[in-house]
Amino acid sequence: AAPGGVSVSAVLPAGGSGERLGGTTPKQFCAVQGRPLVSYAVRAMERISWISDIIVVVSPENIETMKTIIEKYGHKRVTVVEGGITRHRSIFNGLKVFAENELFSHLLQKPEVVIIHDAVRPFVEEDIVSKVVMAAKEHGAAGAIRPLVSTVIASAADGCLDHSLERARYRASEMPQAFLFDIIYEAYQQCTDYDLDYGTECLHLALKYCKTNAKLVEGTADLWKVTYKRDLYAAESIIKDNLSQQVCVITNVKETHAQVDFLLLESLKSRIKVEAISMSLSKNDSHLQNIFSGQCYNFVCVNDKRCAIEETQQLADMLEKSNIPLLYPVVLISVHLDISENNCFSIGMEDLTVIKKFARETKKKNILVYGLLIQYK
Amino acid sequence: AAPGGVSVSAVLPAGGSGERLGGTTPKQFCAVQGRPLVSYAVRAMERISWISDIIVVVSPENIETMKTIIEKYGHKRVTVVEGGITRHRSIFNGLKVFAENELFSHLLQKPEVVIIHDAVRPFVEEDIVSKVVMAAKEHGAAGAIRPLVSTVIASAADGCLDHSLERARYRASEMPQAFLFDIIYEAYQQCTDYDLDYGTECLHLALKYCKTNAKLVEGTADLWKVTYKRDLYAAESIIKDNLSQQVCVITNVKETHAQVDFLLLESLKSRIKVEAISMSLSKNDSHLQNIFSGQCYNFVCVNDKRCAIEETQQLADMLEKSNIPLLYPVVLISVHLDISENNCFSIGMEDLTVIKKFARETKKKNILVYGLLIQYK
Repeated sequence: AAPGGVSVSAVLPAGGSGERLGGTTPKQFCAVQGRPLVSYAVRAMERISWISDIIVVVSPENIETMKTIIEKYGHKRVTVVEGGITRHRSIFNGLKVFAENELFSHLLQKPEVVIIHDAVRPFVEEDIVSKVVMAAKEHGAAGAIRPLVSTVIASAADGCLDHSLERARYRASEMPQAFLFDIIYEAYQQCTDYDLDYGTECLHLALKYCKTNAKLVEGTADLWKVTYKRDLYAAESIIKDNLSQQVCVITNVKETHAQVDFLLLESLKSRIKVEAISMSLSKNDSHLQNIFSGQCYNFVCVNDKRCAIEETQQLADMLEKSNIPLLYPVVLISVHLDISENNCFSIGMEDLTVIKKFARETKKKNILVYGLLIQYK
Repeated sequence: AAPGGVSVSAVLPAGGSGERLGGTTPKQFCAVQGRPLVSYAVRAMERISWISDIIVVVSPENIETMKTIIEKYGHKRVTVVEGGITRHRSIFNGLKVFAENELFSHLLQKPEVVIIHDAVRPFVEEDIVSKVVMAAKEHGAAGAIRPLVSTVIASAADGCLDHSLERARYRASEMPQAFLFDIIYEAYQQCTDYDLDYGTECLHLALKYCKTNAKLVEGTADLWKVTYKRDLYAAESIIKDNLSQQVCVITNVKETHAQVDFLLLESLKSRIKVEAISMSLSKNDSHLQNIFSGQCYNFVCVNDKRCAIEETQQLADMLEKSNIPLLYPVVLISVHLDISENNCFSIGMEDLTVIKKFARETKKKNILVYGLLIQYK
């Protein structure tokens, strides 16, 4: 449930042109590790179960691109809305989906609190979103802030320094922000064309038109906005870093082994980010497909059957087809649980020998297979 | 000569603790592509021939580290000075090298203009440094600025928004900055302990104590300050990008071939950054060693001798010893100019066959050798 029991939806303006990036592709559609930036931001929101609807606002020429992305990466709860020519106009359009039934035939349920986040801020954790939503419920408006990295100065008309701001008194206003829906919607309805065309800051509108002083919430460094090419580089490295510290565990064991399996998982979780646990290895398993498209590089496959090699082969096969090993070495650890009454060390070792031989083959395909035998009574 | 004919030196404060980076190594000493960040900033200054002295100010515990870096990367014109406990105190210490003979036995020549740049801004081009120096000569003080990426807000005592700043009126103050030496030194001599302990902005001191309104110079995006871990990632990717677009040409041809050699170089220069041209391949060539430590990955070796393979082998050998191919594939193109009266196609082809065979060997060591034969009359 949402913090404070409120209903919550999110609007992600993704209509920017990306001119500061120096390229022709708007930055929200630039591929980072093969996946468009906007998809990371959508996924970050999607992971938060108490967000009902995610409105992505894109410029008319990118609507089809966005729909393709949603389908390709299996995004749920997403509605694509056509944006305006400025950021504020786009956000306003996104909000209208909840309120203007003359514009939208299928009106979405109006949330009590609406989150506004950027498509070009791919890293946002539930913790900060939750804090901002709680603060918005209490204060009417709230936004994440960060300390200033550089001193901010005011320039005079002659291009010379007028004055420097005292750095400690000011903060950079970042995203996510959140608002009581009625407050931000009222602010957008009242604001001038000048605001819509030249303003960028939602907190400012809430203050100016609804006398709501937003609560400022200290955010983490990873909330930064991808603005320049160097930010794309940084995002790519951060994603790689995260992926290398994340493992996908696929278990397929009988109930008798459930406890060992559970202990194994808990132990893993205390050391590394365990991304997903699937109980089957069916090729149509959409959960598993999703993990492949999320590009996990580390897999643990737990089973209790004899001839575990088949399952390992199947997974290696799927991984090869996913093209992931073309880019990065994939690690696949095949764990075999053995609690048979008269478990025989030599049989287990035979299994491992088969795995070893298999591993020699897959290594050429950049898939590093390891076998692990756990015998216990 | 320096712009405007002034004498110029530079001070690089490198005393920060790097707490925002979340590591124990101060960020200026963090390795980026195997080389400490501060070394890139020093090199950027060093490349500018009209900067007389480069003062690097480091905290007492890092003086030896800094001296090792200077020796390892062959930095010239650098003086290491012990810093104070804050940024301003460190800069002041750096300036004293030019002025206080009771502190320093060997006083450096006082420059007319002093540049202040950060050790954690590895990318700075001569063009912007030159503009800032010119502006400082005219106005007494000058500094690079950038547009604000985020809206800046003032917070009230209760942690709520007080007001947002109108983004267009403000700028982020970046580095490099430059000052008439007498102005900035006077400002530091007059400023209070509070300024020295809590201030960070030199432009502010020049304004407050010397009534000098600094000229603001629009800088490029690459002037940004490495602050967070993501910035290290970005710096690493930018350096890799630059390296891949940069080639080292080594020529060793007789005068009769000089024109072809010249045309080849000019043609290369119009397409790619040509980093260095050396006329010899002596193992003790410090220029070549410097290129190896700068980690160039692309080499063109031009010669007009028969049996050019020896030189190519020698270079491949040096590259292997440099450890560069351990990290990245190195491309080495061996160009053979042949203008002999009766130049014989089959002899040239024999040379290429030898190169081809050699290339097969070096490929295993991650050195990709290509042969190019240019015959003309």
